[in-house]
Amino acid sequence: MDWTREIKSAEARIAGHIQVTPVMQSLGFGLDLPIEIKLEQLQHTGSFKARGAFNTLLSQDVPAAGLVAASGGNHGAAVAYAANQLGHKARIYVPEMAGPAKIELIRDSGADLQVVPGAYANALEQARAYEAETGAAQVHAYDAPATVIGQGTCFSEWQAQGLEADTVIIAVGGGGLISGALAWFQGTKKIIAVEPETSCALHAALAAGAPLDVEVSGVAANALGAKRIGSICFDLARAQGVTALTVSDAAITAAQNALWRERRLLVEPAGATALAALTSGVYRPARGEKVAVLLCGGNITPDPLA
Amino acid sequence: MDWTREIKSAEARIAGHIQVTPVMQSLGFGLDLPIEIKLEQLQHTGSFKARGAFNTLLSQDVPAAGLVAASGGNHGAAVAYAANQLGHKARIYVPEMAGPAKIELIRDSGADLQVVPGAYANALEQARAYEAETGAAQVHAYDAPATVIGQGTCFSEWQAQGLEADTVIIAVGGGGLISGALAWFQGTKKIIAVEPETSCALHAALAAGAPLDVEVSGVAANALGAKRIGSICFDLARAQGVTALTVSDAAITAAQNALWRERRLLVEPAGATALAALTSGVYRPARGEKVAVLLCGGNITPDPLA
Repeated sequence: MDWTREIKSAEARIAGHIQVTPVMQSLGFGLDLPIEIKLEQLQHTGSFKARGAFNTLLSQDVPAAGLVAASGGNHGAAVAYAANQLGHKARIYVPEMAGPAKIELIRDSGADLQVVPGAYANALEQARAYEAETGAAQVHAYDAPATVIGQGTCFSEWQAQGLEADTVIIAVGGGGLISGALAWFQGTKKIIAVEPETSCALHAALAAGAPLDVEVSGVAANALGAKRIGSICFDLARAQGVTALTVSDAAITAAQNALWRERRLLVEPAGATALAALTSGVYRPARGEKVAVLLCGGNITPDPLA
Repeated sequence: MDWTREIKSAEARIAGHIQVTPVMQSLGFGLDLPIEIKLEQLQHTGSFKARGAFNTLLSQDVPAAGLVAASGGNHGAAVAYAANQLGHKARIYVPEMAGPAKIELIRDSGADLQVVPGAYANALEQARAYEAETGAAQVHAYDAPATVIGQGTCFSEWQAQGLEADTVIIAVGGGGLISGALAWFQGTKKIIAVEPETSCALHAALAAGAPLDVEVSGVAANALGAKRIGSICFDLARAQGVTALTVSDAAITAAQNALWRERRLLVEPAGATALAALTSGVYRPARGEKVAVLLCGGNITPDPLA
């Protein structure tokens, strides 16, 4: 696949539908180096997922039966929003653990929302059954080329905004976002994957030499709790020799707190997971190494203004 | 005063001490025009006040008695932070209405914090008594040239970031921030002042032809509740024929909600006051008019992560 060309095409395809998200350079967080940060939590529906959703919907014919997606919450909100914007109907399956903020986002978009007991994998199972039964088009949360290519626009955009870093640190759930980074940068930057210790499908797959099922739990589970890493991500990560680090829930919560207290950036736990690798010391940049962190999601519960 | 030269000098003086804050262009908020937004609530201590504080401290000799400031909260937090960074002692007077978020910020900086019954004017009275008694240097929240010049760097920075707007909309309390805008833009852009209906010292002063005392209350009072507009602001606003609009507390709260729900930007009521003029229809841009809004503060109570 000519990822570079595909991501460039996607950028043109989704322009006007997605929010160009701001970048900044920030000191602080107890670190002695400035960090480049991209505020992708300010994307439509509060996460990068809108990129993959729009790219998928705009690069295929949507059947009369509409769209179906399974999601820990953020992908579902993005597909529901994109479907609504583009005039398609959408059925979204989310597990209860998605939480009220994400469920409300999906409901507000007018999608046909189905809340499923259990975790993301249970929602995916039901979404597949609905797809088979109705002919609705499945929009996969991470393991589909159109999704990965859409997420890749986050990094082509960041590069155009002047990204200087040697190293880009990215939180990983099912691997759609980091696949976009690996597909775009093609080895020109070091990519660090960060997963919660309690849901580390990429780390486990790289150690085992193949994707395998893991248990998922913890503070970021509704965003990063994929039971098995996507095959696109696994192949790209193995080919490029990606380092997959893990951080504790306590480190994630501490980073989330630091972002709010020091910089008034309010993100969900998944959104602070990449920074947690730095603030906890799990990733220690070399002297002079320039580091960038993507804030990927901001859909916290409870609602801070409720 | 050669404001342009002064603001340029201040920019060099405070560089490295303040955060260059990101800008973005956003659709939404029920409006049919894109708005340029500067995220100045991401500044150190959560508001633009750090600019004036650093400029003041770095452009004078600080006496052994240190610094004193009175503040609704944000200015005090900024002076306390700047004093701490530069190794000075600081006594900060705030009214009880400053609220726990701002009081905690000041306490965390190691300043000598005095919480005073009443409103900002009462805190200012005590700060003046302390200044007279000890010889500490008073850092005025808005009506001092060094403060205004410091706030002006917010706009020189925005211009360098590519600000395209014809019109810049700014919330007004005592008038330090908007004075910085008027001093920098010098009539090259239309500046719209927005005040809460319940604390509108500039609006009242322009109507009366001179600064006068007003009553202050409402959701943004701890940030915008100056009893009397600063004389620097009044003179600049009158000379440039500034339009001073007022918005209701309900409009402010609605704008604050829209910023969080649509864009995941969490600001305090004062931080949403400029946008409220657009979302409430109090300010209606002409066809083709390009509009920019400054988000000036993010120190909300209660703490969303508590």
